[in-house]
Formats: sequence, C-alpha cells, structure tokens
Amino acid sequence: MSFSPLIRQLIDALRILPGVGQKSAQRMALQMLERDRSGGMRLASALQQAMEGVGHCTQCRTLSEDALCPQCADPRRDDTVLCIVQSPMDVFAVDQTGFRGRYFVLKGHLSPLDGQGPEAIGIPALLARVEGAEALREVILATNPTVEGEATAHYISQLLIPRGLIVSRLAHGIPLGGELDLVDGGTLAHAFAGRKPMGG
Amino acid sequence: MSFSPLIRQLIDALRILPGVGQKSAQRMALQMLERDRSGGMRLASALQQAMEGVGHCTQCRTLSEDALCPQCADPRRDDTVLCIVQSPMDVFAVDQTGFRGRYFVLKGHLSPLDGQGPEAIGIPALLARVEGAEALREVILATNPTVEGEATAHYISQLLIPRGLIVSRLAHGIPLGGELDLVDGGTLAHAFAGRKPMGG
Ligand SMILES: [Zn+2]
Ligand SMILES: [Zn+2]
Repeated sequence: MSFSPLIRQLIDALRILPGVGQKSAQRMALQMLERDRSGGMRLASALQQAMEGVGHCTQCRTLSEDALCPQCADPRRDDTVLCIVQSPMDVFAVDQTGFRGRYFVLKGHLSPLDGQGPEAIGIPALLARVEGAEALREVILATNPTVEGEATAHYISQLLIPRGLIVSRLAHGIPLGGELDLVDGGTLAHAFAGRKPMGG
Repeated sequence: MSFSPLIRQLIDALRILPGVGQKSAQRMALQMLERDRSGGMRLASALQQAMEGVGHCTQCRTLSEDALCPQCADPRRDDTVLCIVQSPMDVFAVDQTGFRGRYFVLKGHLSPLDGQGPEAIGIPALLARVEGAEALREVILATNPTVEGEATAHYISQLLIPRGLIVSRLAHGIPLGGELDLVDGGTLAHAFAGRKPMGG
C-alpha cells in the first residue's frame, strides 16, 4: 500500500507531533482529508501563526506572543512567591496543583558538558527578575527531580539565599496511590530520609 | 493556568485530530513551540498543500492528487479481482493482509434515511469501473460488518452477479487469538453457521 506524494508528505509531517507514530499519523491524515478539510486548513493556519508569532514573556520567559503572559499579567497572583521551572510545560503542571504565585521558566537545566551554562539557561534574566521583585519573599525550585535538575536547583539556591530569600525545593517521596514495592530505590531512600512524625 | 491567544488557538485546532484530547493538544503545542518550530512550519505547509491539492483517484476513488493513485497506477497488480471498501482507510487495512488486486472505494454505505442513496455513495462510478475492466473475474465486498455495510454489500451483489462476476463477502467469525467468552453473540452465531469441516 502506498499513498500519493502529498498524503505521504502530510503523514511524515504529522509524525513530528509527540506520541504520534506511523499508524496514528496515517489515520489522522486520511480522516482529515475525508471528513474535515476546513479543520485541516484551520490547523495549518493556527500552526503557522503560532510558530511565527509566539515568543517569550519578558517577565517569566514562558511562551507568549504578548510581552506579558496571562500569568504575569494577572494582578490577583501572589507576588511574594516565585516558582522556578525548567519548561513552559511545567508551568502548566504546577498551576494544576493550585499554586497561584509567579513563575520563572529556565531554558532547561545546567549541562556544562553540552555548553549549557548559566547564561544559556537564563540565570542572568532570573537574577534581574528577582532584583526587580520587591514583594518577593520565597522562591520554590521546581526543576526536575534528576541529577541535572538537582544541580541546577543547588546552583540557583547558592545565588538566592545570600539575597535574604527563603529558598525551598519540592519534596521527594513516594507518589500518592503508589505501591511501595513498585517505587524505585532512590525515591524510597529519599522518602525514608524525609520521613515525618505523625500527629498523636 | 491560561495560554496566550495564539497558543490557545493552536491547542483548539490540534483537537480536530482523531484521538487528541485537551491534554495531548497542550503537550503537542508547547513541545513544537519549544523544540521544533521548523517541524511545525513544515506540518503547516504539508497540511495546506494536502487539504487544497488532494482529490480522488479517477479509477478507484481513493484519496489522491494524481489522476491515478499508486495502487491503480501499479501494473503488477492483479486485474482479475476488485475489492470494494467503504473508505480510503479500509484500502490500507486490506492491503496489509497481502491483497494485491484492485480497489474501489465507496463514499460510505447506503443510508436511505439520511439521503445516502446509490448515487451518493458512488454506485454509478463503480458500475462504470466494472464495465471498463475486461480482465475482471471476482469482486470482494469488504464493506463494514454492520447492518448498513451488509445492506450495501447485498445491494451491490444484486447488480454484479447478473454480469457474470464471482461476488464474495469477507468471512465472519471469531477473531484470531480471541477468547470465546469475550466474543459477542452475533459474531459467535455467525461463526457457528459458517463452521468448516476439519481435515482428517
Ligand atoms: Zn510571564
Ligand atoms: Zn486508484
């Protein structure tokens, strides 16, 4: 079975989407062509507008075509607490928990061997952000729970603690609802080390 | 959590893709913007070219921007057998089985109550295709195993049998590897009625 060149090109292009393999890409391409060409055209134009138009929020560096993203532009958010994450996807994950402070989005994590130093991941912009934030009291480091994420969090904490800020890190431990024997050893060790007394 | 307008528009547009919910659409939009803008632009242009350029094969009516699709243009395929399906997706499914004859793609199934009569689903084009196919001996009706698919297959068989063609229908039965008690009653009844003697 083969497809005509334009359909083949569309199937190949759809595979750049995360989680989309050859089979899903085929189904997507054929279904759009059969049932929803106007939806396909709308998607083409939304893609082009977003890829060309979206930049970064001047304040938190998340993705936004406006100078201030919706989170930074919202006057009801708490200016005393700033959450530092590694990517715009993480802003969404943290906001889902109910957090309503401010954000700063790094460009990934420190990785000296790949030439990803403090400048490359946006540390100077973070420091400028912190300097300008008069009401700021606490910084929450929500970088990934990986070796690189930990190293990045440690590096930032060394810069911010001397400025008199409270600096905290997300707690490690066993995930809610998990079964103990399915939890990996490193996580379990962290959970032991971070054990808390139970109320009487 | 909210996204800037262009990102929101992209997330909404991605949801037209089959199997893509709100959460996958968000992940797709943010990942493309963060990591692969040139891939996003390539997808935009592939979508536009396909939505505007792809029509139908003049011979089998599957999706194709060329007058003849790759299957119809292939001189090595068997001209003596024609498989009739309900959609371009089905051409792919049947070809995966190893079938290397010719195809004809109906526009769905007969549905008189919805105004989908023989003309609407392409019966005149099918008859013209059969008339022009001198080497044709057998027609395989591979419409869906639904009430409408069966009725459509029956209607077509009544038109083609008088023309001296062998007309066959895909066998019904229990799917390979299935467990008997999970098979629905209608399928099991068909499997009983279609039981075959075992070789000695
Ligand atoms: Zn922002
Ligand atoms: Zn064709």
